[in-house]
Amino acid sequence: MKAFTRLSTPDGAREAFARVFQGRPLGTERVPLLEAVGRILAADIRAAEDLPAFDKSTVDGYAVRASDMTGASSGTPVRLAIVAEVVMGRRPAEPVGSGEAVRIPTGGALPPDADAVVMQEHTVRHDRGLSVERAVRSWENVVRRGVDVRAGDLVLRAGRKLRPADLGLLAGLGHAAAEVYVRPVVALIVTGDELVPPGHTAGDGQIYDMNTYTLSGMIASAGCVARSFGIVGDNLAVLTGRSREAWQSADAVIVSGGSSVGEKDYVADAIAALGDPGIIVHGIAIRPGKPTILAVAGGKPVFGLPGNVVSVLVTFDQFVRPVLEQMTGRDEPPRPGTSVRARLTARLAAGDREDHVRVALGERGGMLLASPLPGGSAVITSMVKADGIVVIPIGTILEEGTDVEVKLLE
Amino acid sequence: MKAFTRLSTPDGAREAFARVFQGRPLGTERVPLLEAVGRILAADIRAAEDLPAFDKSTVDGYAVRASDMTGASSGTPVRLAIVAEVVMGRRPAEPVGSGEAVRIPTGGALPPDADAVVMQEHTVRHDRGLSVERAVRSWENVVRRGVDVRAGDLVLRAGRKLRPADLGLLAGLGHAAAEVYVRPVVALIVTGDELVPPGHTAGDGQIYDMNTYTLSGMIASAGCVARSFGIVGDNLAVLTGRSREAWQSADAVIVSGGSSVGEKDYVADAIAALGDPGIIVHGIAIRPGKPTILAVAGGKPVFGLPGNVVSVLVTFDQFVRPVLEQMTGRDEPPRPGTSVRARLTARLAAGDREDHVRVALGERGGMLLASPLPGGSAVITSMVKADGIVVIPIGTILEEGTDVEVKLLE
Repeated sequence: MKAFTRLSTPDGAREAFARVFQGRPLGTERVPLLEAVGRILAADIRAAEDLPAFDKSTVDGYAVRASDMTGASSGTPVRLAIVAEVVMGRRPAEPVGSGEAVRIPTGGALPPDADAVVMQEHTVRHDRGLSVERAVRSWENVVRRGVDVRAGDLVLRAGRKLRPADLGLLAGLGHAAAEVYVRPVVALIVTGDELVPPGHTAGDGQIYDMNTYTLSGMIASAGCVARSFGIVGDNLAVLTGRSREAWQSADAVIVSGGSSVGEKDYVADAIAALGDPGIIVHGIAIRPGKPTILAVAGGKPVFGLPGNVVSVLVTFDQFVRPVLEQMTGRDEPPRPGTSVRARLTARLAAGDREDHVRVALGERGGMLLASPLPGGSAVITSMVKADGIVVIPIGTILEEGTDVEVKLLE
Repeated sequence: MKAFTRLSTPDGAREAFARVFQGRPLGTERVPLLEAVGRILAADIRAAEDLPAFDKSTVDGYAVRASDMTGASSGTPVRLAIVAEVVMGRRPAEPVGSGEAVRIPTGGALPPDADAVVMQEHTVRHDRGLSVERAVRSWENVVRRGVDVRAGDLVLRAGRKLRPADLGLLAGLGHAAAEVYVRPVVALIVTGDELVPPGHTAGDGQIYDMNTYTLSGMIASAGCVARSFGIVGDNLAVLTGRSREAWQSADAVIVSGGSSVGEKDYVADAIAALGDPGIIVHGIAIRPGKPTILAVAGGKPVFGLPGNVVSVLVTFDQFVRPVLEQMTGRDEPPRPGTSVRARLTARLAAGDREDHVRVALGERGGMLLASPLPGGSAVITSMVKADGIVVIPIGTILEEGTDVEVKLLE
């Protein structure tokens, strides 16, 4: 039986791991635009042409030369001849001459030589002519060609997670599909003789496997595809075999359960057997989550996470998610609104481990309050009720009433 | 040709619509837990049994009676006989007697009459006996049965959007599947003779359909399923037919494009033809988005949204999303972090319409700044670059430097 001789600090663990492994995207694929929301763009997008591609009217009315309109008012209307009508979806070929007007609908393309549109409401129609009772400035009621995007503009960068508006922009530039990064496949093994899959009946002393489900949800939220390799009992040969199978078929592996230093703890041995360089970090000064393992085998990251479900959620966010997100190719500045300031309703103290405390948020008199939730790392309801996490640095006391940063849960 | 005779205020529009239509969930379905993340729970979940279902050890060590340990120290160790070993996944039948210890791994079930666990590190083993060099309190190093959940507890409420931790809780209680609400199907029609699907070549005067793609993304983000009915030209008979087809096959309908009051604007007529009570609101004092139509036909909501892509995004969020979310069954208090306070970098003024201004967020000296993005409702890049929206009430001026609430875009 071994003991943790020395715990890495959380930052130290991340740095040690990053010296050995930097996640990179795995390849690209082309997906139809309707399936591209939430995917990570794999190539910079430059506009091939102007958007809009032509000057167009923002109103129903008449395309004119603005210079003809000088001084138009209800007292001194300007009379114009209506010479044509713009049809939606066609670019008029005939220019507008001086003293002429062309009927145009909202969104219609301006005829050559027209540089403004008079709103229908400011005109009176008679016979084949028109009285305009209000002047227009040059380019009034017109969206100019290229005002949105100029040909050659870099409009979206590789690494962006595509939002609905981005799909609109890509469509507007004529793209029916998007080149996105392939989603990493993350294999998932849970270990423990005491585990039973939900849907079966747990006998006395057995518990239902929770981590397959929480971790699958977390893996999906990190933009990856979870592939479950089921429950493995406390048997080194079986765990080693299943880990190898998982490692061969996936881009990353997570083994959850029993990576503390008990006699029957085979997770570290199974991970170490996968290949070089092997285990980089084993034991991190974080609560919950001390027995976490960070490893690399044959160019693939392998994580040994604790068995307790709250530890899994915390250590996933701290050590796994950043690595997986690198592998998805996501490369964007942090989004605002991922954390809020709130006032602690109780004193919190961290000893020799950085403490990640689940809090519920509430409001009182317009002030946001963060109330720590009771329960250790085995208490899943502390995570279910939580709105966010407060991190307490090693050796720090936060008194009741302190304003803290609360990292919001997704 | 008609004009908008009277615009509804945004709140007035929502209230008028709500008097006629209150969205309700459409039914329920059972999905495997691995597919349930992000779905809306359709039934309250009560625990059938305690979680954990038995007292269990949080450490590797020895299950004992705490009363035996009084006064134990390295100077005066207490000697115990090791009488058994707990096997993971089994509940020990034999009680622990006074002067006895049972070897127990982390997560193991306590034997009857044991009420504490001595950590292995605080013991010395010899022959068949054990010296304990430290006292333990009653229930020290034990997770008590039911500390997480008591049988009968209401642990999750219907209407909750399931998160990864919730899946863990459901699994922990033995559920292999979840009863969730059926996702509403939202039919989508875009109209306009000028529209061409991306992937084809837009001729002179034509533009690519953007709204099918932005709206599909928005519909998915509201927890619904988008079903595209394609592009319909400016033809009342065709638009009416396609709208009826969409309405029959879906739970809600969105028609985008040309619901202003131009001569060839058939959207209102096509929507009105779908059935009673028909159009509730046509014309809202919002910028962008004035020509929005809110209608109900035969118990299904029907929305006529403007053709400009930014108007579509704004009006969807304001008038469509809340209705669709009701139909998904989602019923939760608002989540913190959906908006942030920021300081305006420019003066903004709203006239006779509530103005929804796209802003980019930046930081300077720890202060969040909101910079309005140029471009009217046709400028998609204003939405692509935006981090959020600032709402300016009708007839209001916000001076540069004002602190405002920025609603973050997803």
